[in-house]
Amino acid sequence: MPGRVWDRFLTEQDRAHVSMKPPKRIGFGNRPALLLIDLYRWVFGDRPEPILEAIKTWPGSCGLAGWNALPHIQTLLNTAREVRVPIVHVTGLAGAGVDEWAFRREDDKGNSSPEALERRRRKYDIVDEVAPLPGEAVLKKLSPSAFWGTPLVGHLNQLGTDTIITCGESTSGCVRASVVDGCTYRFRMIVVEECVFDRHEACHAINLFDMNQKYADVLPLAEAVEYLRSWRAEQPVQA
Amino acid sequence: MPGRVWDRFLTEQDRAHVSMKPPKRIGFGNRPALLLIDLYRWVFGDRPEPILEAIKTWPGSCGLAGWNALPHIQTLLNTAREVRVPIVHVTGLAGAGVDEWAFRREDDKGNSSPEALERRRRKYDIVDEVAPLPGEAVLKKLSPSAFWGTPLVGHLNQLGTDTIITCGESTSGCVRASVVDGCTYRFRMIVVEECVFDRHEACHAINLFDMNQKYADVLPLAEAVEYLRSWRAEQPVQA
Amino acid sequence: MPGRVWDRFLTEQDRAHVSMKPPKRIGFGNRPALLLIDLYRWVFGDRPEPILEAIKTWPGSCGLAGWNALPHIQTLLNTAREVRVPIVHVTGLAGAGVDEWAFRREDDKGNSSPEALERRRRKYDIVDEVAPLPGEAVLKKLSPSAFWGTPLVGHLNQLGTDTIITCGESTSGCVRASVVDGCTYRFRMIVVEECVFDRHEACHAINLFDMNQKYADVLPLAEAVEYLRSWRAEQPVQA
Amino acid sequence: MPGRVWDRFLTEQDRAHVSMKPPKRIGFGNRPALLLIDLYRWVFGDRPEPILEAIKTWPGSCGLAGWNALPHIQTLLNTAREVRVPIVHVTGLAGAGVDEWAFRREDDKGNSSPEALERRRRKYDIVDEVAPLPGEAVLKKLSPSAFWGTPLVGHLNQLGTDTIITCGESTSGCVRASVVDGCTYRFRMIVVEECVFDRHEACHAINLFDMNQKYADVLPLAEAVEYLRSWRAEQPVQA
Repeated sequence: MPGRVWDRFLTEQDRAHVSMKPPKRIGFGNRPALLLIDLYRWVFGDRPEPILEAIKTWPGSCGLAGWNALPHIQTLLNTAREVRVPIVHVTGLAGAGVDEWAFRREDDKGNSSPEALERRRRKYDIVDEVAPLPGEAVLKKLSPSAFWGTPLVGHLNQLGTDTIITCGESTSGCVRASVVDGCTYRFRMIVVEECVFDRHEACHAINLFDMNQKYADVLPLAEAVEYLRSWRAEQPVQA
Repeated sequence: MPGRVWDRFLTEQDRAHVSMKPPKRIGFGNRPALLLIDLYRWVFGDRPEPILEAIKTWPGSCGLAGWNALPHIQTLLNTAREVRVPIVHVTGLAGAGVDEWAFRREDDKGNSSPEALERRRRKYDIVDEVAPLPGEAVLKKLSPSAFWGTPLVGHLNQLGTDTIITCGESTSGCVRASVVDGCTYRFRMIVVEECVFDRHEACHAINLFDMNQKYADVLPLAEAVEYLRSWRAEQPVQA
Repeated sequence: MPGRVWDRFLTEQDRAHVSMKPPKRIGFGNRPALLLIDLYRWVFGDRPEPILEAIKTWPGSCGLAGWNALPHIQTLLNTAREVRVPIVHVTGLAGAGVDEWAFRREDDKGNSSPEALERRRRKYDIVDEVAPLPGEAVLKKLSPSAFWGTPLVGHLNQLGTDTIITCGESTSGCVRASVVDGCTYRFRMIVVEECVFDRHEACHAINLFDMNQKYADVLPLAEAVEYLRSWRAEQPVQA
Repeated sequence: MPGRVWDRFLTEQDRAHVSMKPPKRIGFGNRPALLLIDLYRWVFGDRPEPILEAIKTWPGSCGLAGWNALPHIQTLLNTAREVRVPIVHVTGLAGAGVDEWAFRREDDKGNSSPEALERRRRKYDIVDEVAPLPGEAVLKKLSPSAFWGTPLVGHLNQLGTDTIITCGESTSGCVRASVVDGCTYRFRMIVVEECVFDRHEACHAINLFDMNQKYADVLPLAEAVEYLRSWRAEQPVQA
């Protein structure tokens, strides 16, 4: 797979090392699920804006990276719905009286204008474009990983899941943390490249590299879609 | 703190974003512990060699990065011993009849020469320079994070620990995973910059950036040593 | 402490064994929190009734045992509020699209009358007598233990908690599971005897015995209240 | 299944309740594993003795209950080996520099005679009768549950396990804690009645009742053996 997004960030020595020891593919298993991570209002804002502009009103924004990923995520989500694999949405937990994991996470708390309060109220609302349908699991978390402080691993075990197809944000934050945990729990982890995004370009690229080296297959959307369609074709008709 | 190791890897937009929203310091707490991650033979080999040379015999080597970090780690470890903070070593678990987390992790398995077998036998031996002393905790793991599949969080809770000073390898692998989990469990996480290392230069830098942005304070060794000495000076004499 | 509730359930040999090896007290620590487990409508119903009558409409009812414990739980909760220790309520999670832990848990599912549906809708509502106040943590779970699938351990670590005072139901179910996990995480676990209840008398008694032997101090309400008051008296005025 | 071991410990009200709401069977799944919990020297001693005699030298002994269970456990283990299901042994972790979970667990620490020291040195040795064979997993823990502080859940996920057949000790301690966790992780839990034991008769009986009501099927050995044989007969020849 020539020309990966991380190539330009690696040093000459890094590239030499990787060419001597290219990572092997993990491969898909037989019981996939789709995991959508933190596709909430706080990282989109209400309309597409370049990140340096967007953070003036939405301090957690990922700028255009999120909006550009959104149609791809919709394609992935729609395919998962068509072929009927289990779907799990994860978002932030608010109002439980428990602090978030960050001792210093940016929260725009200095700004108490009515508009800022209204934005914070909608912070963890999953955006309309990928809103959960009835019957799809929706878990809420207070930590980077979708697995920590949620019943996710139990839910996936009950379903018999062996493969988790992942999308969402941020590549270097909650996606990365969830992929490490998923791998730790011995699921086959797949990251769909067009469907994850980040607020920093270098971090997006290098975290994709890290995950592809160690924990996951980082694959193009087309390959994930093709797998899902083949998977459905192989299921018994009544499944 | 001008001139960080990650600066040259960030894009122009990344730097503009960071300058608009610089991360806040977490700060040290009152009950520190030192965590040494995966300082085992497999990533050092038996003598210092440049990485591209070293991996011919030790496929998991981090090359000179590890050997260069070792004196700094010794300074940190010796200071922790002098001021008597709890010390926890973590290494890999072998021989339990359970596979590692990686479906494809490089393990030199193709090579079954007597020399290769002997190297694999010593794989998870903590190197002499930082070998545990009697009474120091030694935990063994089968996953990236020092917290997963080990009793680490229980041990630290029993000690009343609120601050974890971290060193070891790899910056982008087990250190990163442990720092995310430590932050998730609501410990104050400190990464000592000279005392962590990686097999890829870009990943070392960007993972330090990620951790400093989101989960930890990435600090110079001198600052960690100074904190530990001040901490001791403030303890009751009998402590 | 002569005359414990479990005495009549033990065999002669059991009593001889215990008299040769009486359990030692764990003792209170310095940073307590109160944990209220599963005080929801499903186990009370709308009014006190003997259990064999109550389960005809509320199949999960604990009968009078719950109603009899309620005033004691209120005393404990009010004391905790007065002395301002952290308070955590735990209840069931509904509507997340994830199944409960039980493959067979009684859920009255056969009954789809409007009344039964209305009861199920209120299933996990914490009863008014001990309803959470604003600012008190409320966590929702899908498993017996309050620790699994919730951020409870992170929350307690952030607070610096070392002692968990527990009440709620059922003694042999979610209380027991939470006490084992709390002990596992190395908190000092206290079970307030008058403030826990169960749908089976033998299980209530024997699980108190088990917890007192292995994981917790099972203490009378008066002792817990006295501890909380002394604790407050020792805090700095501004605390 | 008339005449269960717990019947004589239940109150009249308990029996009336159970007869109105008998527990449903969970049933076996398709991918079983055998879990042997804490079959170490500390609970057997070196020869069969009645418990009140045995605890004079082996304070953790379960007396004859353990020795009587041993042939049944051997039958179960041998069957599992014959039909080649995955086998996991769990024992205590010693020498890691980390304290056990118990603040007060009986450890015979007051006795420092050479004989007592020698007994403690062999404390967590799995007894010869059920010693692990090469290739069988052996995990070590510092807490009641086989799942906590060990990579067990990852190991079972990697194997695709959906059913855990459990034996060992104590019924009211580590077996119970492991069964609750296994159920929480959504495995089908089976407890083989003749193959678990406890130091207290009432606790053995009531914890079997609790598990059978809430978390597991408590079944006779013959049924577990029959299932394992049928399971093998249904596997493809090469499996």
